[in-house]
Amino acid sequence: MHAYRTHNCGQLRASDVGSQVRLSGWIHRKRDHGGVLFVDLRDHYGLTQVVAAAGSESLKLLDSLKAESVVTITGDVVAREGGAVNPKLATGEIEVIARQVEVQSSAAELPLPVAGEQEYPEDIRLKYRYLDLRRERLHANIMLRSSVIASIRRRMIEQGFTEFQTPILTASSPEGARDYLVPSRVHPGKFYALPQAPQMFKQLLMVAGFDRYFQIAPCFRDEDARADRSPGEFYQLDFEMSFVTQDDVFNAIEPVLAGVFREFANGRSVTEGAFPRIPYRESMLKYGNDKPDLRNPIVISDVGEHFRDSGFGLFAGLVEKGMVVRAIPAPSTADKSRKFFDEMNDWARGEGYAGLGYATRKGGEWGGPIAKNHGTDGMDKLAAELGLGPDDGIFFAAGKEAEAAKLAGLARTRVGQQLGLIDENRFEFCWIVDFPMFEYDEDAKKVDFSHNPFSMPQGGLEALETKDPLDILAWQYDIVCNGVELSSGAIRNHRPDIMYKAFAIAGYTQEEVDTNFAGMINAFKFGAPPHGGSAPGIDRIVMLLAGEPNIREVVVFPMNQKAEDLMMNAPAPVSLKQLRELSIRVVGKAAAAVPDRD
Amino acid sequence: MHAYRTHNCGQLRASDVGSQVRLSGWIHRKRDHGGVLFVDLRDHYGLTQVVAAAGSESLKLLDSLKAESVVTITGDVVAREGGAVNPKLATGEIEVIARQVEVQSSAAELPLPVAGEQEYPEDIRLKYRYLDLRRERLHANIMLRSSVIASIRRRMIEQGFTEFQTPILTASSPEGARDYLVPSRVHPGKFYALPQAPQMFKQLLMVAGFDRYFQIAPCFRDEDARADRSPGEFYQLDFEMSFVTQDDVFNAIEPVLAGVFREFANGRSVTEGAFPRIPYRESMLKYGNDKPDLRNPIVISDVGEHFRDSGFGLFAGLVEKGMVVRAIPAPSTADKSRKFFDEMNDWARGEGYAGLGYATRKGGEWGGPIAKNHGTDGMDKLAAELGLGPDDGIFFAAGKEAEAAKLAGLARTRVGQQLGLIDENRFEFCWIVDFPMFEYDEDAKKVDFSHNPFSMPQGGLEALETKDPLDILAWQYDIVCNGVELSSGAIRNHRPDIMYKAFAIAGYTQEEVDTNFAGMINAFKFGAPPHGGSAPGIDRIVMLLAGEPNIREVVVFPMNQKAEDLMMNAPAPVSLKQLRELSIRVVGKAAAAVPDRD
Repeated sequence: MHAYRTHNCGQLRASDVGSQVRLSGWIHRKRDHGGVLFVDLRDHYGLTQVVAAAGSESLKLLDSLKAESVVTITGDVVAREGGAVNPKLATGEIEVIARQVEVQSSAAELPLPVAGEQEYPEDIRLKYRYLDLRRERLHANIMLRSSVIASIRRRMIEQGFTEFQTPILTASSPEGARDYLVPSRVHPGKFYALPQAPQMFKQLLMVAGFDRYFQIAPCFRDEDARADRSPGEFYQLDFEMSFVTQDDVFNAIEPVLAGVFREFANGRSVTEGAFPRIPYRESMLKYGNDKPDLRNPIVISDVGEHFRDSGFGLFAGLVEKGMVVRAIPAPSTADKSRKFFDEMNDWARGEGYAGLGYATRKGGEWGGPIAKNHGTDGMDKLAAELGLGPDDGIFFAAGKEAEAAKLAGLARTRVGQQLGLIDENRFEFCWIVDFPMFEYDEDAKKVDFSHNPFSMPQGGLEALETKDPLDILAWQYDIVCNGVELSSGAIRNHRPDIMYKAFAIAGYTQEEVDTNFAGMINAFKFGAPPHGGSAPGIDRIVMLLAGEPNIREVVVFPMNQKAEDLMMNAPAPVSLKQLRELSIRVVGKAAAAVPDRD
Repeated sequence: MHAYRTHNCGQLRASDVGSQVRLSGWIHRKRDHGGVLFVDLRDHYGLTQVVAAAGSESLKLLDSLKAESVVTITGDVVAREGGAVNPKLATGEIEVIARQVEVQSSAAELPLPVAGEQEYPEDIRLKYRYLDLRRERLHANIMLRSSVIASIRRRMIEQGFTEFQTPILTASSPEGARDYLVPSRVHPGKFYALPQAPQMFKQLLMVAGFDRYFQIAPCFRDEDARADRSPGEFYQLDFEMSFVTQDDVFNAIEPVLAGVFREFANGRSVTEGAFPRIPYRESMLKYGNDKPDLRNPIVISDVGEHFRDSGFGLFAGLVEKGMVVRAIPAPSTADKSRKFFDEMNDWARGEGYAGLGYATRKGGEWGGPIAKNHGTDGMDKLAAELGLGPDDGIFFAAGKEAEAAKLAGLARTRVGQQLGLIDENRFEFCWIVDFPMFEYDEDAKKVDFSHNPFSMPQGGLEALETKDPLDILAWQYDIVCNGVELSSGAIRNHRPDIMYKAFAIAGYTQEEVDTNFAGMINAFKFGAPPHGGSAPGIDRIVMLLAGEPNIREVVVFPMNQKAEDLMMNAPAPVSLKQLRELSIRVVGKAAAAVPDRD
C-alpha cells in the first residue's frame, strides 16, 4: 500500500465499498456524534467522511488534533446508511472507518479559519495566504485561472500562434507608465527596466520573420493599485501577427476569446458570431464612453437638433451656443416615484455635473419640469423619434460635448443598474474601431496624437498628406466585454516614411523620432512586414469569468494595495554590502531603514 | 484577394499550378538568368521561387530592391520544368510568375547577411538580433524551443499538474546566488528581489493544498555568464507534488522528459523504460562525478585492495596511507601508440594532477611501467577482476579519494571522447540518488549539510536521533542526461521538529532556524503535507535537443556575456528624477553616468 494514499479525497464511490484504502489530507471539520468522531478529510480533489469508532485509538489520536492538521488514514470503505447519504458530495455515498491514523503534520491554532467562507481582514488573509488559499472559493478561483490560461494557450496554438519568452530584464519602454528599475552590478550606474509590456519585442519578432507570436506575458508597471489592477505585475495575452489587416486580427482572436468564455461560461451566454464593431465616435455618442456594456439595452441619443429653435429655451439656448443635449431613455418607469428621478439628478450633481434633467411618462402622460416647459406635442415627437413607448421616461444630459457624453454614459449605466436591466448571465463582446489618429490639444493649441502614435493611419501616407488630420482615423481597436476594456491593439505603422510624416503632423522632427524611437525605427529599415496585434488582460478575463470584482481574488500570491507582499515580507531592507555591490545608496529619511549587517 | 497573401511561402504545390496567387515575404536571394530575374521569396513558412520576366515592370521594381526588402507578389503559379524542379524545397515543383509587385518595406544595406549561415561576430549578431533570427538555423532553434515548451506543458497537464504564475516581484530567497534587487518607490529604502527560483512559492502552494504544481518559471540570478547559463534570466520546469515518495516523483516526471526527448529526438534514441538510479557514492566511484554521461561505456573501478600488499610498492604504499587507486579502462587500444597514453598523462599533469599511470595491452601482452612493476600475473588478475579483454589498456588515477575520483572522471570522459566511444545519437538519462545529508567540513572541523538542508533525511527523525550523521542519506536526487545535470530535487523536510533536529546536528540553534527561515517554518506549523519536486532547466533541455553548446543559440533575445542587451541597449543610465522617486542615488565613479535630464 502506498505510504500516503491509495485514493484521493474526492475519489471513492459506492463501488469501492468493502475495499481497504488509505487517504491523506487536512482535517477540515470534526463532529462528535454520541461518542463517534466524524472527520471531513480534505485534499485538493475533494472531501471524504472518516469515522473513528468510540473508544478506538484512531478516535483518541484524531480527537487530539486541531483542524487543518494533516493525517494519513488507513481504513475500510463502508456505505452510508440511507439518511446519511450526502448527494451534494461526490463521495457522499460512502465513508471510511479509520483503522489506523498517522499524523503527517500537526497544526497549531489557526490565525484564520479554513472551513466556511466568512469574511476576514485582508491583511490576515494575505499574510497567511497559504491558509486563505485552502478555502473553497479562492481555491476554485485559482484553479479557474489556471484552466483559463491553459485553454487560451491551447486555442492560440491551434490558431497557428507560437509562444516565445521575451526578456524580463530589459530596457525602459515608452509605454507611459512608471518603470520598475533593476540596478546592474556589472555596469555600475546603469539600470535594467522590467517590461511594461513586451511591445517592442513582439514587433521585433515580426521583423525577425516569425509570423504569429503570442505569450502569456508578465508585465510590470509601478503604478498605484486599483480594484482591477494589481500593483506591480499583471499578465496579458500578448499577440502579434504579420501580413494582416484589422479583419485578420479580429478573425484570429474572436474564436479564442469566445471559445474560452464559452468553455468557462457555466450557463452564461457569450456573444454569438462576429463581435459587433462600433466606431469610436458612435460609441461615445450611444454609450457615453469607449467601453460600452452591451448587456445594458439603453442607447443614448443626441437630441440637440430636436430642441434647436424649440419652445424650450434652456436647451435651445445651449444648442445655440454649440452645446449638446443627450437623451438617456429610462424604459418602463411608469411606476417609478418622483424620488427615483430626483435622486438621479442629485447623484449627477454629486458627481460634479450641473444636473440630470428628466421627463417622466405613464400611459403616455408626461410629467416633470422639462415636459411641462417643452409641451406635450414636442415631447410626443421626441419620444417617437427615439422609438420610446408610453411608459418610458427620459433623462437629459446637456452641456459641452465631452462632459455631456460622459454624464450620459454614467447615467446610462446607473439607470440600467437601478432598473435591473443588466443581465449578469451574459458576456457581451464588442470591438471599438476607427479611433481618431489625431486630436486638437486645447491647452497646447496644437494637433497631437489622440491615442497611439505607432498605429497605422487609415489611408496610409496619402491620408496624412491630403486629409485634415482631425479626420484621419487609425487602424486601432479595443476589445470590450461587459463594459470592461480587455485590451487595446492596432495595425502598427511599420513604415519609417509614414511614421516621420505622422509625427511631423503632431509637431515632431525626424531627429526627435530617430532619437526617441531609435530601436524600432532602425529595425524597420531592414525589411519590416505589415503587422498588428493586441494584448487582452488575463487577470481581467479571469475576473469576468470568476465573477470577482477584485483582482486579488484571482491571483495566487497578490500584493496588497500598498504593493507589499505580506506573506513573503517584500519589499524589505537590504544590507549595505548589497547596495555597495550595486553602486547605489539609499538617500533621505529612508537611509535609516538600511540595516548595517555586512 | 487578400491585401497581402492568399498563400504563405511554404504552401504552393504542383496542384496549385494555374491559379493566381498573392505571396508576401522577404527577398531572400535574387539571381539574374539571361535577363530573367529569379527571386527566392521567404517567410516564416518557407521559400517560393518568384520569376520576373525580362523587361517587365515587376523585374524593374524587384531589381531595384535590396535583399531583405519585404514585398507582396501577385502572380501565376506555373510548373517548373524537369531539371528546374527542386526536390529539397517543399514548393520546389512550382514557381510564381510575378504580374504585380508591391513594396511593403524597402531594406537598407544589411549589417549582417541573412541568406547563408556564415559565422558573424557576436556583438553584431546580438545588436541586430532581429536579422540574425531570420537565419535558418537560429529560426529553427527558436521554433524548436517553443515546441519543446508547448510539449512539456501539454504533458505536465496530462499528468495532472496545474500551472500557476508565482510572483516575480518578491523577497530575497536563500538560494545562495546573488539577487537582482528592485527598489520600491512606495516604500523608500526597501527593495524587492527577483526570484532565483519559485522554491518557497511552490512549497507554499503544497501547504495551500494544491496537489500538483508546475510552471515554466522565469528565474533570475545575478551571476556571471557561462556557456550553458545566461546572465540574468533563465527558465526551469518547476514542479512540486504533495503526498508523494521519491518513486512517485520519478514516475511522474520520467514519462514527461522521455516523451519530450523522444518527440524531438529526430532519429536519436532515448533511454527506454525507467531511468537508471545511481546512488551518489556509486556515481562518484564509477564515473568520477555526480553527473555521469552514460553514453560513455567506460566504468571506473576502485582497485586499491588489489594493490594492497602487492609487489607494486608505489600503489601499495598509497593504499597503506589511506589513499585510493582507480582504474579507468581504455577499451580496444591495442593499436594506440605510446604517444596516446603519454599524452593522457601530460594532460592530467596540465590539469594540476600528479599524473595518470597506465598499462597498455595488445593480444594479452602488457606494456608500460606499471605493468612492468606489477608483473604479468598481477596485471592478468586485475584485468580479470575488471572483466577486460586482451586488447584493453588501463589508466590509473591514485591519491586522496576526492582528487583521484575527480581525475578518474575527467580521464573517463577524455578517453571516451578520444576513442570515439560517445554516441552522439543517444540521450541517456539517469537519476543520482541517496545523496549524503551531512559531510564533515575539514576547515570548520564540524559536521555540516552536504547539499540541501531542506531535504527530508531518509529514516526521518529516528535516523537523525540514532545514526552517525555521516551515514544519513537524504531523499534528494538529480536528473542527469548525457552528462548534463538538468536539475536537483528532493522530498522536502515538511516537519519543523525534524528540521530543528537536522539543523542542530549541523550546529544551528532553533532560534537561528526560526529567524532565518521564518516564512517556511511558520507555514509548516499550520498543517503541511509531505511533498517533493524538482526543476529541470528548460534552456539545457533545448540545448541538448538542438545540439547547441551555447545557450544564446536557443534564447530568442539573449544578453551577451557582460549581461548587456545590445539590441535594446540595456542596462542604461536613468534620469536623476527616476532615482529620486526611488530614494536612491548612484555612488562612486558610476555617479557620472547618470544624465541630468530631469
